[in-house]
Amino acid sequence: MSDLQPATQFPGTRWAADVATPVVLVDVEILERNISVMAASARRRGLRLRPHAKTHKIPEIARLQLAAGAVGLTIATIGEAEVFAAAGVDDLFIAYPLWVEERAARRLLAVADRARLCVGVDSARGAEQLARALGDDVGRIAVRVELDSGYHRSGVQPRDARAVAEAARSAGLVVTGVFTFPGHSDGPGMADTAVEDEQAALAAGVAALEAAGFGDVEASGGSTPSAALSSGATLTELRPGVYVFGDAQQWELGHCRPEDIALTVESTVVSHQDDAGSSDRLILDAGSKVLGSDRAAWATGYGRLLDHPDARITALSEHHATVEWPSGGSLPPLGTRLRVVPNHVCLTPNLVDEVQVVRAGVHQGSWAVAARGRNS
Amino acid sequence: MSDLQPATQFPGTRWAADVATPVVLVDVEILERNISVMAASARRRGLRLRPHAKTHKIPEIARLQLAAGAVGLTIATIGEAEVFAAAGVDDLFIAYPLWVEERAARRLLAVADRARLCVGVDSARGAEQLARALGDDVGRIAVRVELDSGYHRSGVQPRDARAVAEAARSAGLVVTGVFTFPGHSDGPGMADTAVEDEQAALAAGVAALEAAGFGDVEASGGSTPSAALSSGATLTELRPGVYVFGDAQQWELGHCRPEDIALTVESTVVSHQDDAGSSDRLILDAGSKVLGSDRAAWATGYGRLLDHPDARITALSEHHATVEWPSGGSLPPLGTRLRVVPNHVCLTPNLVDEVQVVRAGVHQGSWAVAARGRNS
Repeated sequence: MSDLQPATQFPGTRWAADVATPVVLVDVEILERNISVMAASARRRGLRLRPHAKTHKIPEIARLQLAAGAVGLTIATIGEAEVFAAAGVDDLFIAYPLWVEERAARRLLAVADRARLCVGVDSARGAEQLARALGDDVGRIAVRVELDSGYHRSGVQPRDARAVAEAARSAGLVVTGVFTFPGHSDGPGMADTAVEDEQAALAAGVAALEAAGFGDVEASGGSTPSAALSSGATLTELRPGVYVFGDAQQWELGHCRPEDIALTVESTVVSHQDDAGSSDRLILDAGSKVLGSDRAAWATGYGRLLDHPDARITALSEHHATVEWPSGGSLPPLGTRLRVVPNHVCLTPNLVDEVQVVRAGVHQGSWAVAARGRNS
Repeated sequence: MSDLQPATQFPGTRWAADVATPVVLVDVEILERNISVMAASARRRGLRLRPHAKTHKIPEIARLQLAAGAVGLTIATIGEAEVFAAAGVDDLFIAYPLWVEERAARRLLAVADRARLCVGVDSARGAEQLARALGDDVGRIAVRVELDSGYHRSGVQPRDARAVAEAARSAGLVVTGVFTFPGHSDGPGMADTAVEDEQAALAAGVAALEAAGFGDVEASGGSTPSAALSSGATLTELRPGVYVFGDAQQWELGHCRPEDIALTVESTVVSHQDDAGSSDRLILDAGSKVLGSDRAAWATGYGRLLDHPDARITALSEHHATVEWPSGGSLPPLGTRLRVVPNHVCLTPNLVDEVQVVRAGVHQGSWAVAARGRNS
């Protein structure tokens, strides 16, 4: 693992209780397996893989993804593009309908000095604004048109894709394709429907662009729940993010198993409901400031305990997770360390400066979350 | 404002669109007024004020609070204590039932070299563990016993406070009082009930300690919703946090007015539901990675727009806020900047490296969020 920082606190020792909790741990064996499984799955279907790096924000993980065959990275912001371009990633797609003023245009062009760069557009006005801000350099940054495939966030309806692409072309931008995020795949039993919606939107979007004379139209889709199901009829590229780590949402939806979860937040039992330990509730020192507080309507709690699947986090404050322990089981004593699986893992690396890397229970060192906080 | 960093990007200009969004703005006039109003309110009731600095994590704001009469700061973690002690704050209370191993004890003692330091305990075992870890220095760190006044998070029932205090005293710790967090005050119409619960718990806790021979027992309570109502019968100290900034939760609960809100996240309209702008939905570039995703069951959305109180944020992703615009109003054009009020402001400074400080619409410079990410 070439890029790993050397361990300073307890080199070569078995992972031990000498680092303060809450601490974010990455099991690198599981991480590598997740990366390899997704890469093989995309390859088997003839799809290019462009993982979303907003999940981890860590150059060392990006390098593992690229080494396994990813064609480049997806990111959400110019700041993330700057970090990954500086780390040597040479093919980047900002899958977001940026509104680009002059200052942002200069930053995009600096990234384009190092990497092939594409950004999202979902309106004629947004494309015209981007072209105006880029000025004479308008040809240096490609765009893809974002489609709404049913999640109803950003993106145009497929029937409007042609008008956006033509406006972009008229303004001097190179249009290379369409993309969509089937975010409605993140619900119980929704993945199949979302994949059908994604395929229909991409097929309609590609047809609309081809009718306007665009060739070699990229069709990019894919989220972690849908990635395994998406097929290559129209699709050319997948952009899953969460798969590298897994999380409690994917576990509850059946898209990963607990043994596939590579990131946990090790936390300490700091309080029992009563000192005698006879209650069924305990408090962990991990809260929303390390786990994030996303909780889908269908989720059973605010995160899970990896080694105690019947326990539930029923409340979350900034530094407290209230855990209901399964009745009949005796509560772990104060001071016990437990591994929490965040509900939505994309929020967790962004809340810490570094993650601790463990292999087979042995601490290897740490990785800096280089793109933490790069929201703009 | 002595500690303000000089503005580098647009000195002396009116706050302008030259900084990338989303950007966290602090209106320092409103901030100073909030600090002054709370200080006067505590003084009038003869209560000591010890603001919770986890909300802002910014030494310059702490200094304004202390200059207005605060006796010291409350914090949640040893890492926060380290930052504020290094910034010169000499009276700190970690209002959290820490589980203290040897390494944490060394860190606490290093803080105690610079500041008067008190920590929370809510179990005999936790107190004994703290004393053991402190060893010969056990007398250098005071403790207060945490009481559960109805929020049912950490803290003991008042009837159990005596046993915890006696265990702490037997272990060599100095016990200076009791404290509670009436967190159930954060609900519609709950503040009055929570204040009654807080007073009852503190009175019972103080009585329990006095019966065991403890004197001069501090009774510390208070959250932003309850702080204005708490009175001095038993209470000696208030610990509100959110009041410095206000947020959408306090606005919706009626504990602050929109004109009292000092922190906003300026964001850009990046997408309309359709390019013609005839829908009632828009997308802002602020998401959970800058706003946080706390949403109480009674909240009307994922945050509010300061200047458009009838708009609602109906969905939140990491970099997208979906805003439902009031029917009949025309949508602000793409590229428009809007000020978002986070639901729970304690999450927002923790998501950025610095906040931008504005006075009367003029940019003054930035403050570093020095204790960002100090979860342990």
